[in-house]
Amino acid sequence: MSPDEIDAFVARTRFTADGLVPAIAQQWDGREVLMMAWMDEAALRETLETGRGVYFSRSRGGRWLKGETSGHVQTVREVRLDCDGDTVLLIVDQSGGACHTGDRTCFDADGVVLAIEGSP
Amino acid sequence: MSPDEIDAFVARTRFTADGLVPAIAQQWDGREVLMMAWMDEAALRETLETGRGVYFSRSRGGRWLKGETSGHVQTVREVRLDCDGDTVLLIVDQSGGACHTGDRTCFDADGVVLAIEGSP
Repeated sequence: MSPDEIDAFVARTRFTADGLVPAIAQQWDGREVLMMAWMDEAALRETLETGRGVYFSRSRGGRWLKGETSGHVQTVREVRLDCDGDTVLLIVDQSGGACHTGDRTCFDADGVVLAIEGSP
Repeated sequence: MSPDEIDAFVARTRFTADGLVPAIAQQWDGREVLMMAWMDEAALRETLETGRGVYFSRSRGGRWLKGETSGHVQTVREVRLDCDGDTVLLIVDQSGGACHTGDRTCFDADGVVLAIEGSP
């Protein structure tokens, strides 16, 4: 992307009062939802410039290059904004597990199945 | 789900200081990410009890039964929590468009494709 295109994309993004926007990462081929994390403007710009998933760590209070320590980097193929510009969807190729637990996704460990009306 | 199971699930959910948790809705078969919205405890409980996607509208400041006016309801098949319990993933069957614009997903209208290293 050109600097102008990046500026335009960032300008359409609506950050919270804390300067953050939630970002959902989805695997491009298997389409599993991998994780949800937060970006500040710098992280969003770096993601758009480099094609690597970069976030803002709320616990550490700073830049978080996904996979910097684990090696489980995200190659970003698409960055999408939702209809009101306040949520980012990243279409990525995730190397290894997305979750710090080693699981493929952060949603693997805990879930409940609901009964569907009309299903057996 | 039994009342005890619902209580246990809600107890594992970490709400923000505002009492909300982000909830991602994903279509169960096509696996497209449909939308991201927020739930308070009451909305999460109602979703678990009824199997309908219920959220908390931050703009209206109250309960939002998805599809109440549009008819585009969400039948919820699974509810998952992420590794630290602060994000909900709903696996749903979305009737019609998930987005108020009429689009199938809230992420359809605005996105950029990044150049991938090594791709043609």
